Amino acid sequence: MLVCDSENLKEKINFFKKFGATAGGGITRLALSKEDLAARDAVCARCQKIGMTILIDDMANIYATLAGSEDLPAIMFGSHLDSVINGGNYDGVLGVLAALEVIETIYKNKYVPPHPLKLVVWTNEEGSRFDPAMMSSGVLTGEFVKEAMLKIEDSDETTFETALKKSNYLGEIRNRFDPAQTQAYLELHIEQGPVLEAEEKEIGIVAGVAGMVNYEITLNGQSDHAGTTPMKFRQDALLAAARTIILLHEKLDRLEDELVYTTGRLNVWPNVHTVIPAKVAFTLDCRHKDSQVLQQVAAAIYSLPESIEKCRLSYKELWKRETVKFDASLVDKIKENSDKLGLSSKKIYSGAGHDAQYISKVVPTGMIFLPSKNGHSHCEEEYTSLHDCVNGTNVLLETVLELDKSS
Amino acid sequence: MLVCDSENLKEKINFFKKFGATAGGGITRLALSKEDLAARDAVCARCQKIGMTILIDDMANIYATLAGSEDLPAIMFGSHLDSVINGGNYDGVLGVLAALEVIETIYKNKYVPPHPLKLVVWTNEEGSRFDPAMMSSGVLTGEFVKEAMLKIEDSDETTFETALKKSNYLGEIRNRFDPAQTQAYLELHIEQGPVLEAEEKEIGIVAGVAGMVNYEITLNGQSDHAGTTPMKFRQDALLAAARTIILLHEKLDRLEDELVYTTGRLNVWPNVHTVIPAKVAFTLDCRHKDSQVLQQVAAAIYSLPESIEKCRLSYKELWKRETVKFDASLVDKIKENSDKLGLSSKKIYSGAGHDAQYISKVVPTGMIFLPSKNGHSHCEEEYTSLHDCVNGTNVLLETVLELDKSS
Repeated sequence: MLVCDSENLKEKINFFKKFGATAGGGITRLALSKEDLAARDAVCARCQKIGMTILIDDMANIYATLAGSEDLPAIMFGSHLDSVINGGNYDGVLGVLAALEVIETIYKNKYVPPHPLKLVVWTNEEGSRFDPAMMSSGVLTGEFVKEAMLKIEDSDETTFETALKKSNYLGEIRNRFDPAQTQAYLELHIEQGPVLEAEEKEIGIVAGVAGMVNYEITLNGQSDHAGTTPMKFRQDALLAAARTIILLHEKLDRLEDELVYTTGRLNVWPNVHTVIPAKVAFTLDCRHKDSQVLQQVAAAIYSLPESIEKCRLSYKELWKRETVKFDASLVDKIKENSDKLGLSSKKIYSGAGHDAQYISKVVPTGMIFLPSKNGHSHCEEEYTSLHDCVNGTNVLLETVLELDKSS
Repeated sequence: MLVCDSENLKEKINFFKKFGATAGGGITRLALSKEDLAARDAVCARCQKIGMTILIDDMANIYATLAGSEDLPAIMFGSHLDSVINGGNYDGVLGVLAALEVIETIYKNKYVPPHPLKLVVWTNEEGSRFDPAMMSSGVLTGEFVKEAMLKIEDSDETTFETALKKSNYLGEIRNRFDPAQTQAYLELHIEQGPVLEAEEKEIGIVAGVAGMVNYEITLNGQSDHAGTTPMKFRQDALLAAARTIILLHEKLDRLEDELVYTTGRLNVWPNVHTVIPAKVAFTLDCRHKDSQVLQQVAAAIYSLPESIEKCRLSYKELWKRETVKFDASLVDKIKENSDKLGLSSKKIYSGAGHDAQYISKVVPTGMIFLPSKNGHSHCEEEYTSLHDCVNGTNVLLETVLELDKSS
């Protein structure tokens, strides 16, 4: 059984920490920034060193291919190199480095696979520079319209199109991966949550990506002077919002245990310490694998009172996504390989979005999750032990090799 | 008994609406803006027309004096001309126009008062352009240090000093009013609250300005991914803040009925819909005339739990002011004159701050409040009926005349 080299993987993880390193030990590597371009160059250089051929498509996605011995569809795997601002050293980049380690291991062992092995780097997964997230996998799978994406601006009013043109990574549309010539897509990623660590599991077998619905809830009150308006005359939108948040917790905590929901953004108008808040709006993000549970969430929202603390309550659905289920046979295969390697595992749904969820619409797809220390991600403290990284890379390697043999 | 001319007062109120008029029928007349300078010019022109002499001090405060027949201390009255952004046509300006109407009435009736009558316009009462509020009365009474105030910048980074120098209203320090040469200060102002209207009182006899204490309360939780962190692992600072706000209402609603408290400003970090809030900070502004009640508020804050929803709770006192009591004999005199004019009245404490509270430290001071429709102020809807404005002006006139006779 081939296994990857722990020291090599460690070297890669440490080496890539320098592209966008922050004082706090994390990285800021926004899509197509000079830090991201340097990291891309480094990946390409390493791929070319072992004879892989590199193609870039019109969304700057990188495909580095190790030729197969037969005319068969490719086995594709990878992730992204971009990060959030003050992000960590594992989210995304680990999937690319694990893919590179898998191919290097195969190459060093002088094994020539029948199928082409295709390492992929997706552009702008985080959406931190150009919103939306998972932009380029979304464009390739019809989720987003390319022309609209090209016009999206970063905080400096640079469009995605300008950033593409300025980079060395604007390629040809004909270089996009061809689903008909792709047998499977695999992505290794950190869990970004605390479940694997808490349950002491080494590998997360990702069954799919949980469905999600986002609401904005608004309370409209009356802005009056903090010093001159007796309590009984007030229509305080912030008090109303506080009661609404508590009420939502009461209602939603009764639903299924695995439901997660978050009031992450809340804004107050006018937000002045001497003025009673006239208006408060906050978001409610709910995720669960069963659409039935999300329907129960909707019912809970619909049953909110029209008025709380004399403030008018209104809501609107901002967006939603259906649950994405990954390819059942790939999910099983990952589980089997995990067992074969003697690793403990747990089948879970991803609460976060990944390029894999869009790719799964056109190619059989699977994901491998690794434990995140304290469940943290999108922060400088983000950490997954080398032990876990090696284990996950070996599961990826074994799954690639099995797929390679299977047809 | 002299009474003011309703039509004249109406003309003044309507005329001054044009200085900074907003589309919504209010005004934006920031301190020393061109709109404010135009309003000042108009006041000065009207004062000069009836032979008043004008002096400007080093803080751009305007003193327009109708000479008295004897060498006696002045009777001073007035208010401010500046407004908040999208403010109304009564807050501040009405006190200046009522003062002008009082002096015009005396002048037209060819009455020559023994005391000089001094109309005053204070600079930057609102603090909307240059924070803090009541800046120039504060400087004159030792509340603020002038040199520090000169350096304060507006949102365009123009300092107060630059704005002063650019205006035609930078006068001499020796022109400041002399407390030793001032018998009393009177200020007519809208209530900015709903009490007089709700209780159907025509005149508010202002006993003083309620004491106030401001806290900032902070909840520190843990920022994690909205999609991947099970509910039981969360330390959601916004949920904790919501519970704290409800808890504060439970504790503070048990205290004295006239206590007012406001959580007006609340900020969430990082305030992203997909991230569990790591930190929430909000202000708590509490006002009451009795320091004992404010001590009970402090005790309620001290008794808050150290931790709510697994988030650490902390607080700090941002600032406080003691209750200011106005001159008892002036308060009585305003009440008597209100009765004499057949007007219904109520003794109240102001919850809002006014220049009068600083002036009261150096000169016997009183205030007259008029009803605010629906209690609104600092907004375009701010309204006080002409009927009420006339009544208030007559109370001011009568009080000035009585003071004039009294020594």
